[in-house]
Amino acid sequence: MEAEIIAVGTEILMGQIVNTNASYMAKQLTALGITSHYQQVVGDNGERLDKVISVAEDRADLVILIGGLGPTEDDLTKQTLAQHIGKPLVVNFDAIQKLIAWGEQQQKELTPNNRVQAMLPLDAEPLKNAVGLAVGAMTTFNNTQFVLLPGPPKEFEPMVQNELVPRLAAQLHSDAIIQSRVLRFFGIGESALVTQLKDLIDNQTNPTLATYIKDYEVTLRITASAGDEAAANALLDPLEAEIMHRVGQYFYGYGDSTELVDVVVNELKRQQLHVTAAESLTAGAFQATLGDVSGVSAVFDGGFVTYAPATKASFLKLDQATLEQQGIVSEATAKQMATGALTQTDADIAISFTGVAGPDELEGQPAGTVWIGIAMRNQEPTATLYHFPGSRHDVRYRAVKTGLFDLLKQLKEKH
Amino acid sequence: MEAEIIAVGTEILMGQIVNTNASYMAKQLTALGITSHYQQVVGDNGERLDKVISVAEDRADLVILIGGLGPTEDDLTKQTLAQHIGKPLVVNFDAIQKLIAWGEQQQKELTPNNRVQAMLPLDAEPLKNAVGLAVGAMTTFNNTQFVLLPGPPKEFEPMVQNELVPRLAAQLHSDAIIQSRVLRFFGIGESALVTQLKDLIDNQTNPTLATYIKDYEVTLRITASAGDEAAANALLDPLEAEIMHRVGQYFYGYGDSTELVDVVVNELKRQQLHVTAAESLTAGAFQATLGDVSGVSAVFDGGFVTYAPATKASFLKLDQATLEQQGIVSEATAKQMATGALTQTDADIAISFTGVAGPDELEGQPAGTVWIGIAMRNQEPTATLYHFPGSRHDVRYRAVKTGLFDLLKQLKEKH
Repeated sequence: MEAEIIAVGTEILMGQIVNTNASYMAKQLTALGITSHYQQVVGDNGERLDKVISVAEDRADLVILIGGLGPTEDDLTKQTLAQHIGKPLVVNFDAIQKLIAWGEQQQKELTPNNRVQAMLPLDAEPLKNAVGLAVGAMTTFNNTQFVLLPGPPKEFEPMVQNELVPRLAAQLHSDAIIQSRVLRFFGIGESALVTQLKDLIDNQTNPTLATYIKDYEVTLRITASAGDEAAANALLDPLEAEIMHRVGQYFYGYGDSTELVDVVVNELKRQQLHVTAAESLTAGAFQATLGDVSGVSAVFDGGFVTYAPATKASFLKLDQATLEQQGIVSEATAKQMATGALTQTDADIAISFTGVAGPDELEGQPAGTVWIGIAMRNQEPTATLYHFPGSRHDVRYRAVKTGLFDLLKQLKEKH
Repeated sequence: MEAEIIAVGTEILMGQIVNTNASYMAKQLTALGITSHYQQVVGDNGERLDKVISVAEDRADLVILIGGLGPTEDDLTKQTLAQHIGKPLVVNFDAIQKLIAWGEQQQKELTPNNRVQAMLPLDAEPLKNAVGLAVGAMTTFNNTQFVLLPGPPKEFEPMVQNELVPRLAAQLHSDAIIQSRVLRFFGIGESALVTQLKDLIDNQTNPTLATYIKDYEVTLRITASAGDEAAANALLDPLEAEIMHRVGQYFYGYGDSTELVDVVVNELKRQQLHVTAAESLTAGAFQATLGDVSGVSAVFDGGFVTYAPATKASFLKLDQATLEQQGIVSEATAKQMATGALTQTDADIAISFTGVAGPDELEGQPAGTVWIGIAMRNQEPTATLYHFPGSRHDVRYRAVKTGLFDLLKQLKEKH
């Protein structure tokens, strides 16, 4: 099945609102395994909307119209589609009852446009609106299915989720379910990951495999369609095992809403360890990221921002002359900062960041040069050298994420 | 002039990213007075992109292509447009120099696709990329102007603002110049600002006045069109004066690229003062924000992340029993944290954050309750109570911005 999303609204064309509905709808289509090669946006204008519908029905079997079901004179989507497919609009009994009740409660006279909110093209299937007054609809004309959905996200999203998706899923796989797994990776670029998995990506059918990037991370979604959950898992398990075999060293967790920092905090909780930090170039960004996690106080009490050499020395009880002699951006300083942070607190594990955020170089070392140190009680400290690309901001936030990943590796090795 | 935006990217069609670029571009077109009746989205596929370009050039004089200028095999926009208009791609000297320098710095071999990033259709005008490697372009074919812009917002937005908008403005008013001022505000919501300026907004013609929000801030852009710069300024000056008269207390600086933290760091530099911080709920986010500013080391040496009560006591040499007795989230604790941070460092001014990030309440106080303290040498410390709305993340980052604004007010009062 090939779908095309048409968002209707002059506000989108004028940049007053972002077209998040299209993105939400597209994500649902992808999860269902429905492809989509085009999207369109058009204003609240019947003539132009009609043209856009014509373009879409020529290239898609499923045309999804979003927006323009409201009660104002601008809202023309339902009327335009009805005219396009040559069907009259008729009143939907449930929707008009709801509308009348609303009018009484609000003590408002219903306008003609209000009444259109409760109407559907003849023979269309209603899609219930759990939140608002505009009923949605699904109808077929000349082998193309048309869907009408309301624009306000709080009406649109539940209608998609509860009314539209189950109907589409039923059409697609009257005997099948769709099962997805989201695998999260860090420390490998998208192109490197794609290279390693090229044959799997090129030959995908069922399960399918898709990559995307966000915040210096790569995410992989594998999706199978099968008769039941066990059969879907039987398709996903060997693919996941093969992926892990190739790039498992970069894997850190499952799920779209799992952040690297959540995995680190959970692992610290599981091992009942407290973490601290001494941050130079990141200037608190690592600890601020820990602070994003609700309940982090179980494993994090605080730490140091040691931006200047003198502050590294005074906060961490180190010798400034030694630090400067060995280089502020050096393996020795990274180790001493981590050890110093451990000594100055009751934490069990300490991480340190020292490097060149840029744009200027420091101590003859180019921007992007970063040492990350880790110290644990009764163990030799370690430190790793990185060269991060990008802007000052990129270097600092790549360092934070890399620090989280290094910490996770250390915690897992320890265990 | 009639414009059409085409966003190119399979990630948009799959719902992996939201098409915020189209919205950003649309807003700029609206501000310029350029109408737009359609938008399109198409995937990374040359054949389909070519069709979409054909549709757009039939109905618009200005076709803006966003995305697909990157170095992977998926990135086909430049090649497809060049073929569509029958022009070869040629190397842009500035862009290839930048690319070669980048390759040397990264010690990376340049791929053929990398090189395409530095190429333009023959005779096209280059649009400089201040942040990345892909050069943009503007070119005319059969009376339609085509624009090529990169997809990553951090490259896209400055190119639109600094390269594209001035060229479009110049075309529109060939006998006039367009002069804009961007006024930045903090501590007032968009609807409150709009209410205060309602008559100015409703009656705007020349100068025009537009508001937008980002990162808990409101920005106002006033734009005048006139015969020369002096005449434009003569239109802008009284409008700016009237705006300042009404909402000047929330104003902090000029310009799209001026962040509140930049203004604070500049003021500290001007007064030759060093700042430190003791952060509880913000957990380093305030100091990390200072660290975003290149050259902040002139005014910032480091500070404390004191998440747990025991850490507040030990790092800042305070009495934990007293802190807990008076309440960790209290005026007294905020003042003592700021004073303690000053005592433990050589800084001239210290800021402290203590509060309830949420989602759970603390000490019977609801999420969003935040005290911000400020201490300066030889002065009584002050503390201010805030109630921030939103998620845990919102509360923490609103606190950071508010702390910056409080600090700026304090520095200006002092002077």
